[in-house]
Amino acid sequence: MSDKIRRTEARRLRGFRDLSGEVVSARERMIARIRSVYERYGFAPLETPALEYVECLGKFLPESDQPDAGIFSFRDEDEAWVALRYDLTAPLSRYVAMNINELPLPFRRYQVGPVWRVEKPGPGRFREFYQFDFDSVGTGSMLADAEACMIMAETLETLGIRRGDYVIRVNNRKVLNGVLERVLCGSAGAACSEGAAGPGGTAGAADASLALNVLRCIDKLDKVGLPGVEQLLGKGRKDESGAFIPGAGLPPEQIRIVLDYLGIRATFRAALIGDLAPLVEASEVGRQGLDELRQIDAALSAGGFDEDRVVFDSTVVRGLEYYTGPVFEGALTFEIKDEDGQPRQFGSVFGGGRYDDLVKRFLGREIPATGASIGVDRLLSALQYLRKIESSASVAPVLVTRLDKSLTGEYQKLVAELRAAGINAELYVGTQNIGKQFQYASRTGKIACIVMGSDELARGEVSIKDLRLGDELSKEVGEDRKKWLEQQPAQASAPRGQMIEAVRGVLGRYA
Amino acid sequence: MSDKIRRTEARRLRGFRDLSGEVVSARERMIARIRSVYERYGFAPLETPALEYVECLGKFLPESDQPDAGIFSFRDEDEAWVALRYDLTAPLSRYVAMNINELPLPFRRYQVGPVWRVEKPGPGRFREFYQFDFDSVGTGSMLADAEACMIMAETLETLGIRRGDYVIRVNNRKVLNGVLERVLCGSAGAACSEGAAGPGGTAGAADASLALNVLRCIDKLDKVGLPGVEQLLGKGRKDESGAFIPGAGLPPEQIRIVLDYLGIRATFRAALIGDLAPLVEASEVGRQGLDELRQIDAALSAGGFDEDRVVFDSTVVRGLEYYTGPVFEGALTFEIKDEDGQPRQFGSVFGGGRYDDLVKRFLGREIPATGASIGVDRLLSALQYLRKIESSASVAPVLVTRLDKSLTGEYQKLVAELRAAGINAELYVGTQNIGKQFQYASRTGKIACIVMGSDELARGEVSIKDLRLGDELSKEVGEDRKKWLEQQPAQASAPRGQMIEAVRGVLGRYA
Repeated sequence: MSDKIRRTEARRLRGFRDLSGEVVSARERMIARIRSVYERYGFAPLETPALEYVECLGKFLPESDQPDAGIFSFRDEDEAWVALRYDLTAPLSRYVAMNINELPLPFRRYQVGPVWRVEKPGPGRFREFYQFDFDSVGTGSMLADAEACMIMAETLETLGIRRGDYVIRVNNRKVLNGVLERVLCGSAGAACSEGAAGPGGTAGAADASLALNVLRCIDKLDKVGLPGVEQLLGKGRKDESGAFIPGAGLPPEQIRIVLDYLGIRATFRAALIGDLAPLVEASEVGRQGLDELRQIDAALSAGGFDEDRVVFDSTVVRGLEYYTGPVFEGALTFEIKDEDGQPRQFGSVFGGGRYDDLVKRFLGREIPATGASIGVDRLLSALQYLRKIESSASVAPVLVTRLDKSLTGEYQKLVAELRAAGINAELYVGTQNIGKQFQYASRTGKIACIVMGSDELARGEVSIKDLRLGDELSKEVGEDRKKWLEQQPAQASAPRGQMIEAVRGVLGRYA
Repeated sequence: MSDKIRRTEARRLRGFRDLSGEVVSARERMIARIRSVYERYGFAPLETPALEYVECLGKFLPESDQPDAGIFSFRDEDEAWVALRYDLTAPLSRYVAMNINELPLPFRRYQVGPVWRVEKPGPGRFREFYQFDFDSVGTGSMLADAEACMIMAETLETLGIRRGDYVIRVNNRKVLNGVLERVLCGSAGAACSEGAAGPGGTAGAADASLALNVLRCIDKLDKVGLPGVEQLLGKGRKDESGAFIPGAGLPPEQIRIVLDYLGIRATFRAALIGDLAPLVEASEVGRQGLDELRQIDAALSAGGFDEDRVVFDSTVVRGLEYYTGPVFEGALTFEIKDEDGQPRQFGSVFGGGRYDDLVKRFLGREIPATGASIGVDRLLSALQYLRKIESSASVAPVLVTRLDKSLTGEYQKLVAELRAAGINAELYVGTQNIGKQFQYASRTGKIACIVMGSDELARGEVSIKDLRLGDELSKEVGEDRKKWLEQQPAQASAPRGQMIEAVRGVLGRYA
């Protein structure tokens, strides 16, 4: 019959992954630890669906100028456009808008789960990946933003990342907008009223577009350096491929303002606020931004979170997302080798900020909100790199083999005894011979095998095979294989009543 | 600005849910307990993507005659049809086919996650719901099927469901096919060769269709009773709405065979096998089925799983799914009231069976497999009904209020102390007054509030408010509200150094 059926090719979508046991277990353990921190601060879980109406997700994906670009969308049976969520914040806004009259405010929730984006797949870039967010919705207090920074720091430390191996960097979009105001006021034909600048301001479309462009240039600082930003703000620059990227076309004196701003670097938060003041004090929104930074500094200091954990950094933009005030990111500062073998910092694993406008789309009024999101997969890579997460070889370290299939009932008793003693153990349920069963045990990461033939049953004994010791010794024996097989140094007999104790002994060697 | 923007209506897709903290936490705890059982037996996690190529999922959804019916599907950027997975078994088959040369067999994995179906939404019927599967792929041994039944029983007991409140029911499709062979042999013009019957057999299309129809009738036994099945096998019957459902059109003597089969009820597994023998012993596939049941009985008995946990039941069909051998279901047998207030058994929460053909679509050769799936949402409802899962009111039982916002730094120290002592505690980060803060605490399920004004700070004291006692007492005081407010019987002062102890005292009242 089978040769008449057209065979289907088994294939997986591009940019998607099958995650094996080790990775899933490690991620599960990591998520449990993160959850414990979020809950310690009083955030409760929420779970929204994978699918949402496109119009409720909002028109723009972060980093995208195209409506609906970058998301998996389709029409449902009523011809409405629906899409797989691309983040967890847009669904949260929809949820808050639907339940605004019932929710206690601030509404503090966390959510963990996959999100989906149609991105060009590449190393470390997938179309399905996990985020783990926490947010406080319905409070404009800077205490909530400061708390978010504290949670980010505490989360990373709870995961075993040492102070000094990470840093939380904080900036404020309002300060950036204050700088942009000065830049725009200097550019030809710009409306120079207060509050004119920034993508969220009331400036004309041309100004808003220019402001966005300048932000985009600043956001590239990491990649292109200060000279690169200078070129991008001006006439443009050639990228690595040799292609010419046209610049924002600012005159030199305007570029100078941005470069001066980016040059402000102070270790201490209060000092940085002091250095920023002359640049933005002429701007109402800039002064607001500085004042917010002062409040965040005060709360961080009162909480004992000093500059060894949380710094202010004027270069942080957090992409072109919907942020309206403080923005923050948690970056890992230890060095790794990149794909070309060059050392570089591991980089950002945590990002967030204040987004006071996101619920407004639904309700027409502002619901202030702030929060942060972990890139779960990137953080897991970091922990694996640092060996801060155990990669347990097998969920069950023991295999009870079936040397003599007619003794299966006895083997069932052995495996039940092991499980009752709290030892995860697998009974071999396949159909192959004992040699293949040992291979199976090795390949599934088992540590010990239980072997019992009818002779041993009669003597009231079981054999316990130490697979790892066996592997080691079999490398050493070399030519003398036959003798080794006879002696079986990695296999020991135990009275059946002492099986648990003997197995614990073997497992203890590798704990 | 806001009144110029067209407001978006915040809405959720039909048949989808937002799950609140209590439900998510309870489900998480339930999943952790189920996972511990699956791992105890040596199953390791696997995670496949949410999206798959439609052709890899297979053409038919269980219960559906229509290709692509009932699934969320769309064309990707390469115009290939992709879909959200409708179960976890079809992706497993795709995964096994892709990795068959690398996987140790039997491959034993569990997977938990949402699946999506375009079903008519209704009470308890959703378009996004969780399944939690375990499967052994690559073994034809009945030991694997018996083990699946043991795991189902052990899982339900681990979740607190008492022996006697559930039952695992086992049948075998091969036995059913043996019965169908007899039925078809008796029907006009049927090919009566051995192995002719059953949807998986080699019979002609007409026979296969008739066999499917008979299975479908048997599967309705729960809903329509034996007389209903009799009508459906014959001329047809009126359903509750008065609509006439045409029957399979079998002659009375053929109907008799099915009814005789369904009438076989024996408490003991061995007795049931004995009673079935005369009905199917003429059929090769029927004899195979009985032999498999004998092997399962032997393994269950050796493992100590007697009829108080696992029974054989000739009426179990498990829908029209892809099963080829043993089928099993875990049902909760205690009574609940249905929507009309009528008592009925809670019903099936666990289902599974052997599916030896599912990987064949890809590889052209049979990879035998067996496993089971939990309906996570239904099981959670059952546990909530039985009060076997705590619905913790709040992830953080304590709110540190901010009576005097200028003392925020002090409040941060209090909340840090509580957290350091292992007590999840929230600092109020909203902007409202103390009365609203107490309301917030109540609404978010807090047990205690910490209150400290400048006087108390000076005295080195904090006040601890017992919110639940407060609620109780405020009901009792009735008219005497003013006096009660002055006395504040549910609020007690403690020296600041004894705050932790005092809070533990309050929490202890409700533990």
